[in-house]
Amino acid sequence: MVERVLGYIEEHFEAHLDRTRALLRQPSISADGTGIAETAALLVGWISELGGEARAVTTPMHPVVVGGIDAGKPFTLLFYGMYDVQPVLGENWMVDPFGGEIVDLPGVGPSIVNRGAMNQKGPLGSFLNVLQAMKAATGELPVNVKFLIEGEEELGSRNLPEVVEAYREELRADACFFPFLSQNQDGKVLMYLGVKGILFMELVCRGGDWGGPTTRAVHGSNAVWFHNPTWRLTHALASMVTQDQKHILIDGFYDEIAPPSAHDEELLTRLAETVDPDDQLAPNDTHRFKYDLAGVDLLRKYLYQPTLNIDGLISGHTAAGTKTIIPHEARAKVDVRMVPRMDPALTIERIQAHLRRHGFDEIEVHVEDAYKWSKSDVDDAPVRALIRTYHELGYEPEIWPHLAGSAPFYLFTDVLGIPVALGGLGHGGRVHSPNEYATVAGLLDHERSIALFVYRLVEELERDATGA
Amino acid sequence: MVERVLGYIEEHFEAHLDRTRALLRQPSISADGTGIAETAALLVGWISELGGEARAVTTPMHPVVVGGIDAGKPFTLLFYGMYDVQPVLGENWMVDPFGGEIVDLPGVGPSIVNRGAMNQKGPLGSFLNVLQAMKAATGELPVNVKFLIEGEEELGSRNLPEVVEAYREELRADACFFPFLSQNQDGKVLMYLGVKGILFMELVCRGGDWGGPTTRAVHGSNAVWFHNPTWRLTHALASMVTQDQKHILIDGFYDEIAPPSAHDEELLTRLAETVDPDDQLAPNDTHRFKYDLAGVDLLRKYLYQPTLNIDGLISGHTAAGTKTIIPHEARAKVDVRMVPRMDPALTIERIQAHLRRHGFDEIEVHVEDAYKWSKSDVDDAPVRALIRTYHELGYEPEIWPHLAGSAPFYLFTDVLGIPVALGGLGHGGRVHSPNEYATVAGLLDHERSIALFVYRLVEELERDATGA
Repeated sequence: MVERVLGYIEEHFEAHLDRTRALLRQPSISADGTGIAETAALLVGWISELGGEARAVTTPMHPVVVGGIDAGKPFTLLFYGMYDVQPVLGENWMVDPFGGEIVDLPGVGPSIVNRGAMNQKGPLGSFLNVLQAMKAATGELPVNVKFLIEGEEELGSRNLPEVVEAYREELRADACFFPFLSQNQDGKVLMYLGVKGILFMELVCRGGDWGGPTTRAVHGSNAVWFHNPTWRLTHALASMVTQDQKHILIDGFYDEIAPPSAHDEELLTRLAETVDPDDQLAPNDTHRFKYDLAGVDLLRKYLYQPTLNIDGLISGHTAAGTKTIIPHEARAKVDVRMVPRMDPALTIERIQAHLRRHGFDEIEVHVEDAYKWSKSDVDDAPVRALIRTYHELGYEPEIWPHLAGSAPFYLFTDVLGIPVALGGLGHGGRVHSPNEYATVAGLLDHERSIALFVYRLVEELERDATGA
Repeated sequence: MVERVLGYIEEHFEAHLDRTRALLRQPSISADGTGIAETAALLVGWISELGGEARAVTTPMHPVVVGGIDAGKPFTLLFYGMYDVQPVLGENWMVDPFGGEIVDLPGVGPSIVNRGAMNQKGPLGSFLNVLQAMKAATGELPVNVKFLIEGEEELGSRNLPEVVEAYREELRADACFFPFLSQNQDGKVLMYLGVKGILFMELVCRGGDWGGPTTRAVHGSNAVWFHNPTWRLTHALASMVTQDQKHILIDGFYDEIAPPSAHDEELLTRLAETVDPDDQLAPNDTHRFKYDLAGVDLLRKYLYQPTLNIDGLISGHTAAGTKTIIPHEARAKVDVRMVPRMDPALTIERIQAHLRRHGFDEIEVHVEDAYKWSKSDVDDAPVRALIRTYHELGYEPEIWPHLAGSAPFYLFTDVLGIPVALGGLGHGGRVHSPNEYATVAGLLDHERSIALFVYRLVEELERDATGA
């Protein structure tokens, strides 16, 4: 069966590529809503063409496409995807960012250059193409499929938890898959067994009963006897992290953190053989790390240390020229990356307690996003299936205990209770930047690896079910 | 003589008011250059109509009107003025901000509502009207007049020092006058014998060899092992001032500060009888002072303490929504109000030394403005003349040792070596805000008080010259 599907994919890849390019040409910018409704409708139509049923579930912001294809099979795969992309405003592209054009990129090869090519409409198109190939080549799917495709990933997946909660029964599945172009420019396959959690919040200090102007900026000469909310926020922030930025000074912040498991330590040791952290400096235009560590010790910090990071800061007069004022408010955007087993609610409480304890009672904490880390296990069926897939296609994946970044996979591992695999062959780049791309050859490999993965997943689920 | 002039002003006030309104209708926004050249040309023309000679001296930014009227008299008055105004962009006005309209304001009375009505084209028009009245009523001026009228006051008078230096000989005078609507809404006359100095600078922290991304923001997950320039600036700022904002922690910052002189202490004691600092809270929408002091002790802080104030702060992601990044730079606009006898250059050096001593070598200090305080003495001829003027017109001025704000009067007191008086009757308000106004009755009083002041100034200068 799988050979027939792989053969079909190779033969019909031109048509598949056109389909993916059509999806990419349809703008779907969640930040301003451009093309969001159209894209959701397009996906609903595509799923019904595949013999499934889907609808755009409305949320307070953008719809989530929820649906499924009942193949009459014993196992069910939940496909998690996203159809929204980052804006292109103010960016300078070599081609129309929604033109679906193929450009021969030096050192990379022919690639679709388009917003969303890698993140994440390219892989989304690939997955749907694979299902089409299965039906066309074999007359059926080897697994039932459920779809959960959101339109707010770039805005922090804020309404996804409620949709998952509301459709909990319908979304019941044996495994979850998120397609991802996993190869770097050298062809190495990177595989992640989980993600960190995240807390995104705004700290706001306004003038009030404690002092400072309350409704508008006032003349700067008053700084001699009025408080300045900007000083206040500055002191509050500085109290949270040591000057060398290595230690977070919030009581209890590190309390629940689990050290790497024995298996993760093994992965780390292996990783240190293929990964040189120094390689991360140049692509990020950064000259040094904040720790005087190397190899496995630096990787351990990278994956198992939480962060408290200032994403943005604003107050008062920020344009050119002279203007002396006491601003009436100051705002900081701050994020925390939570490693296993930090708890979002506890972490928020500790930050608030820190502010109180240090006399900053009046600083408001507005939590905008909060979700926990998520881990799958190398022994989980979808993970085993994905590793088998890579091996069969001739790749030895570099396995990371988890990503340093975040995604709301806890909704699957913890809320729905199903293991997650993310991956697939293929290469792309410049995510969230001008000239985002996915290579044409990589998209073919992506489809082939996804098809193989689905068949191997069914085998692994069968093995678990039969206790074999 | 003076009675004839005062009579002329009363009789011809309609025409004078029209002239001032014409000046106000001509926009002169230094921030974007609107009408700057036209206004300078208009003033040059007006001065030559008065029998004087003037030209628009070009600078790297906006021209300064330099000129004079030689009346063949023994004494010379330097008139310092400004013809530029704040922008009106984004403000909501009850009338056209450049319509020169007269509106009967509740509780205030008929007033010109126009950008610059109080700050500073209303008083500028008044001064020129007074000269016209003197010529028309008496055929001559009682004093030679020099003009120095700049078009960058709202941008920090950045090119004024060089013009003063270049025209030092031509600007030679016995006294300097800056007209100002000095009455508050209750009619009380406030009189200031000087101004504080100012230092306006930007502190910039960029990623570099010390750490942090160097050319663009990078993904926030890297905060676990990269430095963040925003944390760095936050710590640097927090190290400069105590958490209660009462003390500046920069070594030597207070070293040159002179305690109030015996005479200033007298003024302070007298001030405390008529000034309740608490009256400053409500108009500034502020609930409390940072010092638990009252009366003369609070006023002493207000006038004799330097400030280190954050005017603005910006870094990274400041729009709505979630975006996790490490910004590659963070910027703070900071001003210092310097009291007598702080030295701008020494103060800058101390701030830089503080940054070095605390390990913030890489934080750049860009000084945008730096000028010292300036004080005149109650015994200086123009100050004596102005106090006599107020008394003759039935007002007892409330005399302040100096203003809590800043103006580059050191150019006159220190560079040209001539005493300065600022004042005149009249009331206006909402400076730098929508619906800026000057009352019609106040503008008449302003002209009358300026005319009387000029005659009294000549008498006081004569007294000093003859040692009487």
